[in-house]
Amino acid sequence: MPEFDLISRLREIICIPPGSPVARCEVGIGDDAAVLGVPSDHELVVCVDTLVEGVHFPANTAAAAIGHKALAVNLSDLAAMGAVPSWFLMALTLPSENRAWLDEFAGGMAELAGRSGITLAGGDTSSGPLSISITALGLVEKGKALTRSGACPGDLLVVSGTLGSAANALRMLREGNSPCAADQRALDLPVPRLDTGRALQGLATSCIDLSDGLVADLGHILEQSGAGASIELGHLPTPASLEALPETTRWPLQLSGGDDYELCFTVTPGSEKKLMDISLATGVELTVIGTINGRSGVELITPQGENYRLESTGYLHFGTQQGEKQ
Amino acid sequence: MPEFDLISRLREIICIPPGSPVARCEVGIGDDAAVLGVPSDHELVVCVDTLVEGVHFPANTAAAAIGHKALAVNLSDLAAMGAVPSWFLMALTLPSENRAWLDEFAGGMAELAGRSGITLAGGDTSSGPLSISITALGLVEKGKALTRSGACPGDLLVVSGTLGSAANALRMLREGNSPCAADQRALDLPVPRLDTGRALQGLATSCIDLSDGLVADLGHILEQSGAGASIELGHLPTPASLEALPETTRWPLQLSGGDDYELCFTVTPGSEKKLMDISLATGVELTVIGTINGRSGVELITPQGENYRLESTGYLHFGTQQGEKQ
Repeated sequence: MPEFDLISRLREIICIPPGSPVARCEVGIGDDAAVLGVPSDHELVVCVDTLVEGVHFPANTAAAAIGHKALAVNLSDLAAMGAVPSWFLMALTLPSENRAWLDEFAGGMAELAGRSGITLAGGDTSSGPLSISITALGLVEKGKALTRSGACPGDLLVVSGTLGSAANALRMLREGNSPCAADQRALDLPVPRLDTGRALQGLATSCIDLSDGLVADLGHILEQSGAGASIELGHLPTPASLEALPETTRWPLQLSGGDDYELCFTVTPGSEKKLMDISLATGVELTVIGTINGRSGVELITPQGENYRLESTGYLHFGTQQGEKQ
Repeated sequence: MPEFDLISRLREIICIPPGSPVARCEVGIGDDAAVLGVPSDHELVVCVDTLVEGVHFPANTAAAAIGHKALAVNLSDLAAMGAVPSWFLMALTLPSENRAWLDEFAGGMAELAGRSGITLAGGDTSSGPLSISITALGLVEKGKALTRSGACPGDLLVVSGTLGSAANALRMLREGNSPCAADQRALDLPVPRLDTGRALQGLATSCIDLSDGLVADLGHILEQSGAGASIELGHLPTPASLEALPETTRWPLQLSGGDDYELCFTVTPGSEKKLMDISLATGVELTVIGTINGRSGVELITPQGENYRLESTGYLHFGTQQGEKQ
């Protein structure tokens, strides 16, 4: 399929709802590059993330879910910066032309794009093993981006939503079982926490999105903030599908399973009321799970007050070595 | 290899020469996304291009050349817009960890990045079949971007450099022969025409970079400008390595071989003196190869004044269908 057709087709079905604050696109798809206008009181927020078949999603994943997730993981990064999504570019590598698959893939992506107010500004298609690399561009008011580096001892440690659903779905699939609908949905169709990220501007002292697992991702905040953290395992927000699991199965899924695409952030003590207001306004649960301290690393405390030791801290990449997927 | 290490390593060795006009990077590698400052009198120019092993370069290509070319093809798109390169993001998919390969790859990329004044602002690494997807971001003064849509009947049709070297190298390799050094270099280490693109601001009425072959890429200018063109085959700028080839071998390489990464553009009649000044200032040959007319499509005229018919107009993608690589 000529790349031009595919990118044009995507452009057609990605319909930004009328009235959405769409950023200025002077030259769009069909030239050597897109020309975009950044308002003078804003900064540009840019990230890239790739999904590879068999690495980031199972080979039999529904095309619409792949389209959704490829965009969602990037929107989740924009959310963690407190940015408003504006444009995206897609590099799509496909083993063969399959119009039905492409339509379904584009449909899943278009639905999330329209809902998030992000518009396709360009792309490139190649033949090769299936992989989708998306560059997302967002806007943030000057100096207002959330970063990983501002956590201070005494700050409260907070996560959005619940943890462990997607990892539980993957566990079930690997064991040859069918995940429950909620877990499968969490794995296939993660919801980027864009409204929550925006609402945290001026409140969160640091923020990251959870893709590699809570302990690994929190580690980046701690490293860049020069701090440590203590997590109360009894406070981990737990989805109904994981409630019946023994803690020794559940905690590793919630701490290092990955693929949560929730926000993990810190706020100064006494911010509980503001957190509750944001939760009510966005409809997204916010749970204080621990505190930042002046030591280093992550301490995991059981409900009995004992230290818990986690075997693996994050998603495994490149064979046996520890890696990340953002 | 953890992606963080690789991206950090690349960041270390990409050294922008002191005094280069580096665009503002508020938050760089190591957060969920980069935060970039766009000057208020500029617009952002963004493009993405992927190289897949076995599709866009032969499997035994030197790592340094792959690193160079993956960035060069994107810089060539920025050049065609008249933009100044500012930042890039890289999504790298690698079959296995190989530090020697990565160092060589990064070295080739870093050398071109430093020379072009572009800085790495973020990236993502995955395990999988080798492919490199780069998103390049450049800046252009508001309203000054070159586009594909302004060619008018009577305009002169111009190309930079010479045509056909890279395609000739590929032809030799496919026939089991060794290309000459100049052709191999054109294939492996294309030089994006950034200075030429900048100098064409206010002069070129349309511009595109040649990646798929002259006839196919010129077709985009013609389609978007609603015009036709006539090319004098006797005027095609020919590298020394192709001079001895019979025209029936040489012309197809120059017209549809692809991988030239030269600029093809149009100027109003009487611009010859300005073209010569730009050529002298940049050291890049500029050759008038034809004119724009009010018809449609591309006419190819032999030195004997006859019409020449080209069998295939551009790089083949996805099996037997006509496609593009930008």
